[in-house]
Amino acid sequence: MKIAILGHGTVGRGVDQIIAERVPSLEVARILELPDRLTDPRMTASYDDILADPAIEVVVECMGGVEPAHTFICQALDAGKSVVTSNKAVVAAHFAEFAQKAERSGAKLLIEASVGGGIPWIASIAKARRIDDVQSFQGIMNGTTNYIVYSMLKDGSDFAEVLSKAQEMGYAERDPSADIDGIDVRNKTIITASVAFDVACTQDLPVTGIRTLTKYDLDLFGSRGLTVKLLGRGVQREGRYAVAVEPVALPTTTLEANVPTNFNLVTLVGQTIGELKFYGQGAGSLPTGNAIVQDVLDVAEGRDMTYRFAAGLTYDPALLTGDYVYRTKARVGGSTFYEPGACLVRGITAAAARELFQRALAEDPSSFMAALV
Amino acid sequence: MKIAILGHGTVGRGVDQIIAERVPSLEVARILELPDRLTDPRMTASYDDILADPAIEVVVECMGGVEPAHTFICQALDAGKSVVTSNKAVVAAHFAEFAQKAERSGAKLLIEASVGGGIPWIASIAKARRIDDVQSFQGIMNGTTNYIVYSMLKDGSDFAEVLSKAQEMGYAERDPSADIDGIDVRNKTIITASVAFDVACTQDLPVTGIRTLTKYDLDLFGSRGLTVKLLGRGVQREGRYAVAVEPVALPTTTLEANVPTNFNLVTLVGQTIGELKFYGQGAGSLPTGNAIVQDVLDVAEGRDMTYRFAAGLTYDPALLTGDYVYRTKARVGGSTFYEPGACLVRGITAAAARELFQRALAEDPSSFMAALV
Repeated sequence: MKIAILGHGTVGRGVDQIIAERVPSLEVARILELPDRLTDPRMTASYDDILADPAIEVVVECMGGVEPAHTFICQALDAGKSVVTSNKAVVAAHFAEFAQKAERSGAKLLIEASVGGGIPWIASIAKARRIDDVQSFQGIMNGTTNYIVYSMLKDGSDFAEVLSKAQEMGYAERDPSADIDGIDVRNKTIITASVAFDVACTQDLPVTGIRTLTKYDLDLFGSRGLTVKLLGRGVQREGRYAVAVEPVALPTTTLEANVPTNFNLVTLVGQTIGELKFYGQGAGSLPTGNAIVQDVLDVAEGRDMTYRFAAGLTYDPALLTGDYVYRTKARVGGSTFYEPGACLVRGITAAAARELFQRALAEDPSSFMAALV
Repeated sequence: MKIAILGHGTVGRGVDQIIAERVPSLEVARILELPDRLTDPRMTASYDDILADPAIEVVVECMGGVEPAHTFICQALDAGKSVVTSNKAVVAAHFAEFAQKAERSGAKLLIEASVGGGIPWIASIAKARRIDDVQSFQGIMNGTTNYIVYSMLKDGSDFAEVLSKAQEMGYAERDPSADIDGIDVRNKTIITASVAFDVACTQDLPVTGIRTLTKYDLDLFGSRGLTVKLLGRGVQREGRYAVAVEPVALPTTTLEANVPTNFNLVTLVGQTIGELKFYGQGAGSLPTGNAIVQDVLDVAEGRDMTYRFAAGLTYDPALLTGDYVYRTKARVGGSTFYEPGACLVRGITAAAARELFQRALAEDPSSFMAALV
């Protein structure tokens, strides 16, 4: 089967390498690149060359960003070409539109690599749903922030120190805000919720990152046997669902607390299967490339993969309710003492917790917040 | 699609319940039970009733034990009926024979539930192998022994105390030897190696359980930041492979060390995917039933699943070499001091370690052994 790759960066090169070395049944026939980077006879700067080639059955989009990825994916699906993408930003923004176009043209849309890198997460959710409803999910979905917390704990370093080391090692972007402000996890949480709950999740969900995390916070929680991890979470119950992204303080004896370096760990809970957890590389050329090639092989084998988002759930923030700790100099309404410099607010929604946190940040920009579980 | 269930015990009832409540596309048409237990109009004590019914496409074997399960599975496959089984003992003993019969008749053989209960482990290995070789695997594959170690650590209880509590709770059989002597893990390791390495693994592998584990041992390893877990392990390299079952002393910060109660955690390593870990319920009516129903749905959807064991690897115990700790009053050749009452032997194979352990046991039946990683 002939495919085209859009973008020959880290992920695109991984796909190209894996297919060349390991998958003789697939051929990378064309690669879309910028006009000044056409270093390979398969490369073209014109997407029309790819769209117009009837021999190309699958378009693998590894460009990242919303445009022109969005337009290119729509055009491929409209032309009846299946699309495999690792691009969480564009899927989170346009999942329902892509799914409709795919259904209309009979093309497939596969998105495994957009969440959890090499972890077979989307496929596992889809498989679980053949029997169970997914009652909830949660996960460490961002390797950069896990690496930051892991290194701060291991080396006793400051956030800024660790971040700049992560940037040197290529674990973090030069502009780290998508990672440390939770935007990347937000996109992955939206995609996961859409697949897990069969609903086009387009909510303006509460999102809090770890930008203000300090050694003091880790020590504070550590003294209570807790570790901080940035989690995406979702829950559904009786026709309603809720999602959130926030730092969570977890017991140090949980699997989540022990996830090292830049690995990911994602969990789903179903009625009959119970709790299933999946751990692996959440990013990187070969693991992400592997997830993409797996998707292409599924297309080649004719596996049915359609998204309809027909569950009709309503969004209800009350489903995600818990206790929240604020380390802040600001006054937090309704709070009680937790530790020196930190207070506790019990029984509020993730949405309300985020609002309280925004008010605290306005008064004390160094404030930090974490949910207790 | 109509199916028959052989055996209406814990797992068989789980399959029956899940299909009745959640999977309208499947129908449990017949159930094989003992003549004095025919409590349901679908039940029969005659396997011929099932074999002779052309409407039954899949036979789900949940009887356990080698015979008559072995004969029944062969007869179903010969008759062109696909077989789904949770029975590790019979698959470990007859995997190659079953695979040949399935290939000859065109029937499918699916064994997901035989290892790791509800964890999608066998399917994940098969999927990984579409791209990678599986370079190694390891896992906590037995919930009973994990529960025993977990409870000993948590409650400071003795092995015997915890075992009898596990028996009360239904986590352990009245005769616990299959669990605590590693026989159950041995069967699961053989099955995993067969699928992961594409080789009919019928080796007389080294198997050591945790029957002699004491609080003293846990404290001894605990003082060095280690926890003991019973692991099945396998590795392949350059046309050779090795497997073993043994207690392993792992850092307390590993995911394995933090697996609670009776859960399982299994790991595979591939060239491009890296390390993937899967965690879930390794036993129980609904999780194991779920894995079986997933297999039946795969048969219904026509997914290709064939085992050929064609890799032609040779068995080489030298691939599993490491350091071993013996807590024993016996003299262990080639050992050095480790902790009071315990000695260390460096750089020996799992097979040689097992032999040393057998000699130690002959002299001091209370001896305990664990591999260091």
